Amino acid sequence: MGPEEAVNIRREAIEKITGTKLENIGYYSLDVKRSTARNIENMIGVAQVPMGIAGPLKVNGELAKGEFYIPLATTEGALVASVNRGCKALTLSGGANVLVLEDKITRGVLFKAPNALEAKKFVNWVMENEKRIIEKTKEKSRHLKIRRIRHWIVGGNVWLRFEGETGDAMGMNMITIASEHACSWIEENYPGKITFLAASGNMCIDKKPSALNMITGRGKTVIAEAVIPRDIVERVLKTTPENMVDVAYRKNLIGSALAGSYGFNAHFANIIAAMYIALGQDVAHVVEGSHGFSLFEVQGKDLYASVTLPAVQVGTVGGGTGLGTQREALEILGVAGGGNPPGINARKLAEIVGATVLAGELSLIGALAARHLGKAHQELGRG
Amino acid sequence: MGPEEAVNIRREAIEKITGTKLENIGYYSLDVKRSTARNIENMIGVAQVPMGIAGPLKVNGELAKGEFYIPLATTEGALVASVNRGCKALTLSGGANVLVLEDKITRGVLFKAPNALEAKKFVNWVMENEKRIIEKTKEKSRHLKIRRIRHWIVGGNVWLRFEGETGDAMGMNMITIASEHACSWIEENYPGKITFLAASGNMCIDKKPSALNMITGRGKTVIAEAVIPRDIVERVLKTTPENMVDVAYRKNLIGSALAGSYGFNAHFANIIAAMYIALGQDVAHVVEGSHGFSLFEVQGKDLYASVTLPAVQVGTVGGGTGLGTQREALEILGVAGGGNPPGINARKLAEIVGATVLAGELSLIGALAARHLGKAHQELGRG
Amino acid sequence: MGPEEAVNIRREAIEKITGTKLENIGYYSLDVKRSTARNIENMIGVAQVPMGIAGPLKVNGELAKGEFYIPLATTEGALVASVNRGCKALTLSGGANVLVLEDKITRGVLFKAPNALEAKKFVNWVMENEKRIIEKTKEKSRHLKIRRIRHWIVGGNVWLRFEGETGDAMGMNMITIASEHACSWIEENYPGKITFLAASGNMCIDKKPSALNMITGRGKTVIAEAVIPRDIVERVLKTTPENMVDVAYRKNLIGSALAGSYGFNAHFANIIAAMYIALGQDVAHVVEGSHGFSLFEVQGKDLYASVTLPAVQVGTVGGGTGLGTQREALEILGVAGGGNPPGINARKLAEIVGATVLAGELSLIGALAARHLGKAHQELGRG
Amino acid sequence: MGPEEAVNIRREAIEKITGTKLENIGYYSLDVKRSTARNIENMIGVAQVPMGIAGPLKVNGELAKGEFYIPLATTEGALVASVNRGCKALTLSGGANVLVLEDKITRGVLFKAPNALEAKKFVNWVMENEKRIIEKTKEKSRHLKIRRIRHWIVGGNVWLRFEGETGDAMGMNMITIASEHACSWIEENYPGKITFLAASGNMCIDKKPSALNMITGRGKTVIAEAVIPRDIVERVLKTTPENMVDVAYRKNLIGSALAGSYGFNAHFANIIAAMYIALGQDVAHVVEGSHGFSLFEVQGKDLYASVTLPAVQVGTVGGGTGLGTQREALEILGVAGGGNPPGINARKLAEIVGATVLAGELSLIGALAARHLGKAHQELGRG
Repeated sequence: MGPEEAVNIRREAIEKITGTKLENIGYYSLDVKRSTARNIENMIGVAQVPMGIAGPLKVNGELAKGEFYIPLATTEGALVASVNRGCKALTLSGGANVLVLEDKITRGVLFKAPNALEAKKFVNWVMENEKRIIEKTKEKSRHLKIRRIRHWIVGGNVWLRFEGETGDAMGMNMITIASEHACSWIEENYPGKITFLAASGNMCIDKKPSALNMITGRGKTVIAEAVIPRDIVERVLKTTPENMVDVAYRKNLIGSALAGSYGFNAHFANIIAAMYIALGQDVAHVVEGSHGFSLFEVQGKDLYASVTLPAVQVGTVGGGTGLGTQREALEILGVAGGGNPPGINARKLAEIVGATVLAGELSLIGALAARHLGKAHQELGRG
Repeated sequence: MGPEEAVNIRREAIEKITGTKLENIGYYSLDVKRSTARNIENMIGVAQVPMGIAGPLKVNGELAKGEFYIPLATTEGALVASVNRGCKALTLSGGANVLVLEDKITRGVLFKAPNALEAKKFVNWVMENEKRIIEKTKEKSRHLKIRRIRHWIVGGNVWLRFEGETGDAMGMNMITIASEHACSWIEENYPGKITFLAASGNMCIDKKPSALNMITGRGKTVIAEAVIPRDIVERVLKTTPENMVDVAYRKNLIGSALAGSYGFNAHFANIIAAMYIALGQDVAHVVEGSHGFSLFEVQGKDLYASVTLPAVQVGTVGGGTGLGTQREALEILGVAGGGNPPGINARKLAEIVGATVLAGELSLIGALAARHLGKAHQELGRG
Repeated sequence: MGPEEAVNIRREAIEKITGTKLENIGYYSLDVKRSTARNIENMIGVAQVPMGIAGPLKVNGELAKGEFYIPLATTEGALVASVNRGCKALTLSGGANVLVLEDKITRGVLFKAPNALEAKKFVNWVMENEKRIIEKTKEKSRHLKIRRIRHWIVGGNVWLRFEGETGDAMGMNMITIASEHACSWIEENYPGKITFLAASGNMCIDKKPSALNMITGRGKTVIAEAVIPRDIVERVLKTTPENMVDVAYRKNLIGSALAGSYGFNAHFANIIAAMYIALGQDVAHVVEGSHGFSLFEVQGKDLYASVTLPAVQVGTVGGGTGLGTQREALEILGVAGGGNPPGINARKLAEIVGATVLAGELSLIGALAARHLGKAHQELGRG
Repeated sequence: MGPEEAVNIRREAIEKITGTKLENIGYYSLDVKRSTARNIENMIGVAQVPMGIAGPLKVNGELAKGEFYIPLATTEGALVASVNRGCKALTLSGGANVLVLEDKITRGVLFKAPNALEAKKFVNWVMENEKRIIEKTKEKSRHLKIRRIRHWIVGGNVWLRFEGETGDAMGMNMITIASEHACSWIEENYPGKITFLAASGNMCIDKKPSALNMITGRGKTVIAEAVIPRDIVERVLKTTPENMVDVAYRKNLIGSALAGSYGFNAHFANIIAAMYIALGQDVAHVVEGSHGFSLFEVQGKDLYASVTLPAVQVGTVGGGTGLGTQREALEILGVAGGGNPPGINARKLAEIVGATVLAGELSLIGALAARHLGKAHQELGRG
């Protein structure tokens, strides 16, 4: 029985048990053999998520240069239109300048010592043997380049955070396998008492809100920025730089601070979610994508806007990137598959993500500020 | 020109501009007229996200009673299998008990006064007129039931957080429209100096990590829990209650605490993301879904496990819930469309989400703990 | 043997054991009988902390009206001088306007149920019996006015947070005794299974950094604010409103946000510590005093500055307020002992604390900004 | 006019203006010349804070070895007695083992670039010139050893965090002067556009709650730990290891997590405050001292307890350490003045602080747990 047949039988069984008709779920074009081997178990079909296009968006990155059309898969009405408006403002202003400040995926494993004295001895040994441990990780992947191992001790608990580059893959699987392998070696070779307790001890930290990733970064740390001339702010966003700065200051900074948030922005997560679904990324990484800063300032008479995203975890190989629609979406951006040298496609993608998030912030802050202005106008009109 | 034709023309244009073939993106069965009216702009097709089934999962909720098959849309290999294993452990143990502690969506609007003295006067006026303001919100929606308005002042900034129930809709749009309407009324009728600055001032707080939502809740606050007999832990999860408790204690609590995280759990976000995509929810709400506690304790000889999710924002009408595949997935759970009385379908869905998240936590913490046990066995064997 | 003699014998014993001479520690004027009965055990003498005076500081509060001289006990050189400069700028500007937004001390006790279902039943019962429980707290204190009991559930854990006013006492002891008494009653009278686990479950939360107190307040929530005319900024603080706004924006807001801080200010803690030592407050409450917002804005051509302190826990009776030097320091401010009606002295003190913290922020942000201006001038000179 | 006379005249002036008698404030033995030169301006006298002694406390540190008597200055009744009880439990158990994991003070200065592209260039230049910059810091202090400079970029804002050792001084002044000096050099020598905006940009981060210091440490990072045999728990603390573990788990970990706290402990701040006042430390550093973990576990039948303090900022020279009573208190611990080699006295003091905090935690968690046990006994008795 082929994999497609298995999918059909399973779907029909669910239809029977639950008394439903799953015609749409059963309507798809993706390569079932591939997806059942790599992406999904107990497959019954697909979710079809509407995909729209925003752009063109001019990006001035190190790798992403030129105008891009951005695929966004979402069911939230108005999101694509809003991002599109931001793209227009950016492109008319000469595009978004983008930087990838850092590039590392991380895995924070957990060891358990009977007490802190033993934990400290263990950490000393690990630091002395750091090179050998990093060598060990290479046995499991030729693309993985561990740069360093950070460590923390609390009581008898030890976290080692492996940090490294993973080419064009997002790299979670790669680093998990490699760090587990290295940690088994550590456990076997360390002369003292130690237990390798868990392959993840939440100092990675993966798919959870955290100050750790905001402060130290995870995946790609990206900044996108632009100066939007006053007339473009007025014409495209229907407001003024001053109004946008006022809204961003009170909402993104003071409001988020009061909420005890790590998301000092308007809606990073909306854009990240729509891109990650469209482009075959691990959608749970929207969590980290929601962290970061969206800052607006008046420079001269114009608007300077920047977004700083500490943790953009993306890849162009592995995960969902090889599936039919997702691969096509990556091709729209010119970043499908592995780059030469490895890593440049994923980094280019991160740059485009950063620029699109900036477009989204400009549009939403602009809309909030315009309403305010609109009200002011309305009030004047009432008189 | 019909909407489908517009989609095709747009997709072909993108193909031409970017030199791509978008056959898979153009392969779909959803109702384009509906999706372009409500969910997406500049549509070019869909993203097909593989959907699998976990279960049966026995749920003992107030509304969700019986065995459920859980649709999960993901590209992360092993996730469905892992959740499935957790479902098995739960169902063999009599199912997950589930509670919805609270049910409210929120919108935290932002007003600006010239200083705190004026801000305080304004807040006093708002509190005196709370009933009238709540009446105003009803003009925009018959399903919305605002329960109260919380307030904060920082300098001259005032946040009013509208909190209320929204029937079977997730309710963000509903409460946004209603609170904007009410705030315009406030701005017009307040006798002093005040500016209605922004319809969201990030004290909602929407799609960003925050202590605020962890502490006060947003959407549905859900707890799912179960006692897993020792033999089921050993047979299905291949480990012991003690090992799982040890891993959960050090990873979910101490590790997350050290990371400055609000996610004291193993991987809530994975399950939330897969369910939200499959079921037509707003996927950016994975951010809030990643918050919360996954606690493991030994009770007698057995394992007691609970997950506490402060902010599960789900609906069964509106958003992406009416799209072909998403509606079918909701039907699998028996929660498609509006309930009678309104609200019961969304709440039932929240219960199922809670139970599935518990399944996911059991399986991953079990796997981490088993590796540890496995290693221990291996070491014994080495001797 | 009198208490003084006991102190001397103990001090001499320590001198002998440790080979030291403790002449200064043995030099004091405080009432040993009182302090050994209420404030200290195993007394050997005192720490002499230098006390200076800042001011006059003009305060326009609800209760604190007029010019005050602020006692500050510190060993950090330049602190008094710096606060003094801020007092001058404020007083020349007409004084600091001050508001006490809320007034409540809190105790968050911890109950343990076998699971969340039982926890929820328990909370339901508590809420139904809230009035009776509050009546119980009155049996232990006539000054305590519990306003409400908040509750949280995580797994089988239940926190009840008693919130109330405590007259002129800071009130921690009062509310601790009263809530313990009420909880014993609860434990005895609740018909189901429940364990009163701990008189504090860290949802008070006392003397620890937290989003909880930032968001919900603890003790007095205070705002102090002022408009400083441009010429006074230039003359007294040697800088401009624009420079101060720029420094405060980047340091207090963005810098603290990036640090994952709840202290969006320059140095609240310095002023709070010096006042709390001088005035007989519980010095560990400096922790909560370090939370909050110091905001600077240009209004017209002038500087608007505000400090928002969510948690100022102060009293004028009880604790260290009756000791010789501390009582004298309270008398300098005209707030020693109980007020009529009870509570007005403590609230007046909180207003003065807020105004002094504002003075401290103005001075430090001014100094930082002036250096910048100074540098800019220097650079111009280089040309 | 001598300094004492100035103090008297000023105090009398305050007496006259405020209609008070400040006899106690005017009663002191400290060296006014010294204190007015280094510690205080506008001096009028002192605050006398009662000082008690806890101990003997057996400490097994790298530097602190043997039994110590701990000076605690506080007005909170029962605190010294409680710590004393913890000292007894620890000393009977063989003492507290203590580790200083790291030793560094930090200063996080703030530069401003026009945008992130310029900020990145600047950071690149700084990293290339790191050695020269560190050399510059040495011009201002021979005791300061800067180990490295960390950097962060958000938009056009750049923080450089200088991290280094400062001998036996706490070191804030030392590192402030040295990093300002180095940053002026940077500003003058950097070939591009940059503004040295503020000598502190809150990425130090000083005297504010933060994840940054919890994660990266500041001052001394200290762990103290001990195994308390079951019979000592029962005899001295009147409870069982199991009860203490249960209370600590639910209060220190879950409760603090829910509160969004960085203080996963019972009352670090109380002990830190009392020691810092007694020993001439900068009392506002109680804020950082309140961060950290207090973990309790059952090991065999006994209790294992540890406290992990990420940020203990202490010194034995400079600040208030040379004042009469404070110096005597340091002498009681055998750590007054500079050590040979420099740094050993401050580190020894940090070890003693850690051990004393552990004593405080044992006693309070024990008391909370015993009440619980007491209640249980009482209930059994009722039957």
